[in-house]
This record gives sequence, C-alpha cells and structure tokens, in this order.
Amino acid sequence: MTITVFGFSTSHYSLMIYYVLKELGLSYEVVQPSNHEEIKAPKYLATKHPFGKIPSLDDDEFHIYETRAIARYLINKYQGTKTSTVLIPSDVQKAALVEQFISVETSYYFEPLFKMLKPIAMKIHKGIEPDLKIVNEGREEFEKTLDVYEKLLEGKDYLTGEFSLADLLHVPLTSYGFSAGEGDLWNKRPNVSRWWKNISERESWKNIFTEYNLAQYATK
Amino acid sequence: MTITVFGFSTSHYSLMIYYVLKELGLSYEVVQPSNHEEIKAPKYLATKHPFGKIPSLDDDEFHIYETRAIARYLINKYQGTKTSTVLIPSDVQKAALVEQFISVETSYYFEPLFKMLKPIAMKIHKGIEPDLKIVNEGREEFEKTLDVYEKLLEGKDYLTGEFSLADLLHVPLTSYGFSAGEGDLWNKRPNVSRWWKNISERESWKNIFTEYNLAQYATK
Ligand SMILES: N[C@@H](CCC(=O)N[C@@H](CS)C(=O)NCC(=O)O)C(=O)O
Ligand SMILES: N[C@@H](CCC(=O)N[C@@H](CS)C(=O)NCC(=O)O)C(=O)O
Repeated sequence: MTITVFGFSTSHYSLMIYYVLKELGLSYEVVQPSNHEEIKAPKYLATKHPFGKIPSLDDDEFHIYETRAIARYLINKYQGTKTSTVLIPSDVQKAALVEQFISVETSYYFEPLFKMLKPIAMKIHKGIEPDLKIVNEGREEFEKTLDVYEKLLEGKDYLTGEFSLADLLHVPLTSYGFSAGEGDLWNKRPNVSRWWKNISERESWKNIFTEYNLAQYATK
Repeated sequence: MTITVFGFSTSHYSLMIYYVLKELGLSYEVVQPSNHEEIKAPKYLATKHPFGKIPSLDDDEFHIYETRAIARYLINKYQGTKTSTVLIPSDVQKAALVEQFISVETSYYFEPLFKMLKPIAMKIHKGIEPDLKIVNEGREEFEKTLDVYEKLLEGKDYLTGEFSLADLLHVPLTSYGFSAGEGDLWNKRPNVSRWWKNISERESWKNIFTEYNLAQYATK
C-alpha cells in the first residue's frame, strides 16, 4: 500500500490531508510539484487534477482530487484499521451533523478567514502591502462567524460534541491565523478558545507542526 | 414520518433538496418563511439555521441544515427504501468519485455561474441594471470550467459514469441559466449538452419544474 499526496507542504489544503492521514495512522509520501507551472501543465491536468490545483492523491493507482473528497475517501476506506479515531461516525444522525459542520466550515468560516489572511500572508511572504479594506472586511465577516461559533460551542468540547472531521478541517487555516498574529480573535471568545485548544493540541497536529516546520510562518 | 423543508420554493438550494427527495421517493412538505426578516430572527436562528439561511430540514424532530449535508443525510437514511435510484454508491471508490465531483461543482461550477447569473436575475426580477463587467467575468470563468467538463464528459453519460448526487446538484442553477437565456453555453459543447439532457430530463426533475412553475423564470 502506497499513499502519495501531491501537494505543497505548507498549503492548508495539503495540511488537512496530512492531519487526516496521521489521525488514521497511515503512512504516506508527499510529492511536491517543482513550481506553479507544473500544476497547470497538460500532464498534471490529465493525471492529477483537471482544474490544476493541489492536493491530489494516489492510493495504489486509485486517483482522487479535491481535499474534502480525499479526506472522506481515506476515512471510508481506512478508519478503524490502524487507530481508534472516529472522524465520521457510522450513526446516520451523527454523521449528518459532521457533514453539517463541514459545510459550515466551507461556507462561513474558511472564506472570510481566507479573505482576511491572504493579504496578510502576501505581506509576510512577499512584502506586498495588503489592501486593508479587504483585510478589514474579511475580519468583520469572520468575527460574525466566530460569534455564532461561540454560541454553538456553549457547553461543548467539539462542534458535534465529539472530535470529528468537521473540527479537523478548521485547524490548518486557523493555525495560520495564529501565526499571522491574529490569535486574539479566537482567544477572546471562551468557548471558541477552549475548542481551539481541543482541536489543535492533539498529538498528530503537534507532529505535523514540527515536521513541516509551521512555526516558520510566524517570523518569516 | 414527516419531512419538512424550510425554504423558498424557487431557491436553487431548496430545489436541490426537493430533487433528492423525489429521486428517493419521499414525500415532504415545504414551509416557506413569510419574508427575509424571518430567517434572521432569533427564533429561526435558534431552531433552524444559526447563520440565517435556507434551507433547513426537520425529519421527525431531527434538525439539520446546509444543503449538501441535508442531501447526504437523506441518502444515507432512505436510499433504496422506496426507489432503486442510487445517488451515493456503497463502493468506497465509486463514492469517492461522487464526492470528488460534488466538490468540483461547489468549487468551480457553482461560483462562476452564480456570479454571472445573479446580476441577470436581479435585472429580470427587480429591473436593476446588471454590472456587465461582473457578468462577463463570471461568464469567462464559467466557460473555462465548461471546457474542462467537456473533456471530463468525453464518452460518459454522467460525471462518474453513472447518475449520482454529483450530477443532480448541478441541475437547479443550470436550469436557471437556461431560463435566463444562456443555454448556448451548454448547448455548444456536445458532451456537456448530452450530459445536461441526461440529468435534466429525468421524471422527478420534470415534475419539480411543473410543480414549482419554474418556467415562469424565463418570462418574468
Ligand atoms: N477546491 C480545492 C481547492 C484547492 C486549492 O485551491 N489549492 C490551492 C493551493 S493553496 C492551489 O492549488 N492553488 C493554485 C492555483 O489556484 O493556481 C480543494 O478543495 O482541494
Ligand atoms: N451554505 C448554504 C447556503 C444557503 C444559502 O445561501 N441560501 C440562500 C437562499 S438562495 C439564503 O438563505 N440567503 C439568504 C441570506 O443570505 O440572507 C447551503 O448550502 O445551504
């Protein structure tokens, strides 16, 4: 069994996949495209991802792309075989709530947070001055989302009550938010802050953080 | 068993749910919010959807929101009980490809198409002059997506080879595109055009089209 992830190590999408793989106890190798052109070249488009994105996964010749689809595939196939972590429960109603919060993450969390962080990242990594109007619009939208999360997480350790794929998918981009100096957004909300600790202080994420040297983001 | 959908009948998100319900052979009732304020009021936020969106579903007191999560829930619970339609196959690899194309729809199809159609809809329904720059940007992006679809659909009747939830989710907004006079985008690409016929000429969609009087879009 060989699992290969095509992706840039520090992309939050790739990090979602590594986190799933580690929680499931699977070993994998990462193949990094040598540059941005490679993922737009005919060969990559034909064999890895027709829309020219990373990540893409190869599991013993079975090819699949799109982060959340890759995550579900790995869980459906391997969950319970190497570790006892349950990322998608078999109970129909519990699984439905996991899916609900996966969609919440995609629809209301990721987008405004990314809108806010992208210009900040461009400043940190490329020295390009951020458009503060966009950063602030993103932050304002994202604060509204976090206000809803604060209510949803009242009396709960995780979004559905138990750790799941829905929580996990929040980790990479949020971790980047902390590295970019925006941690106060989470810290100032007690329920959100407790949740963040629960989902980011797991062994497998700590390993990823060290292995891929994610702390570099903070200073670079 | 009572399934209630809270939604506006003509919203493409609600239409996705009705289409799933009909394919599964389930009866349901629709409760329409009386106005936009109702879905932002504390009661709706607390019991139906904390982010103030439609649709939301109630299945014998089990509450769930977010369209694609609702769809997966209905399929996991009811698929095969009333009809033989398979929207998500049980085979792990086949299911993975369905998930892959659900994510493709969300990431590359829905967004540019919606960007293009929203101003056109505002013109048709409210007489507001569209920002043609945005319409054209959306159309240009969407044409690129359809060019990829044209390749992906070579020699195939459906995205994964067999009809699935991934195909189904494309139907409501595409149907709206046709009603808005943009059908040429699909028609001029032979594979895409064949696929569109396959996914829109099913009995259950034709019933929805009549039942909810969707033809009105074209003239209104
Ligand atoms: N919908 C895709 C999004 C993946 C994505 O946007 N990946 C970025 C990496 S951060 C990418 O490939 N960007 C390159 C580009 O868009 O040209 C998924 O869920 O996997
Ligand atoms: N992520 C949601 C999106 C639903 C959505 O955007 N619904 C629209 C209806 S067309 C809505 O409720 N809009 C009202 C608003 O945003 O205020 C889903 O997948 O169900």
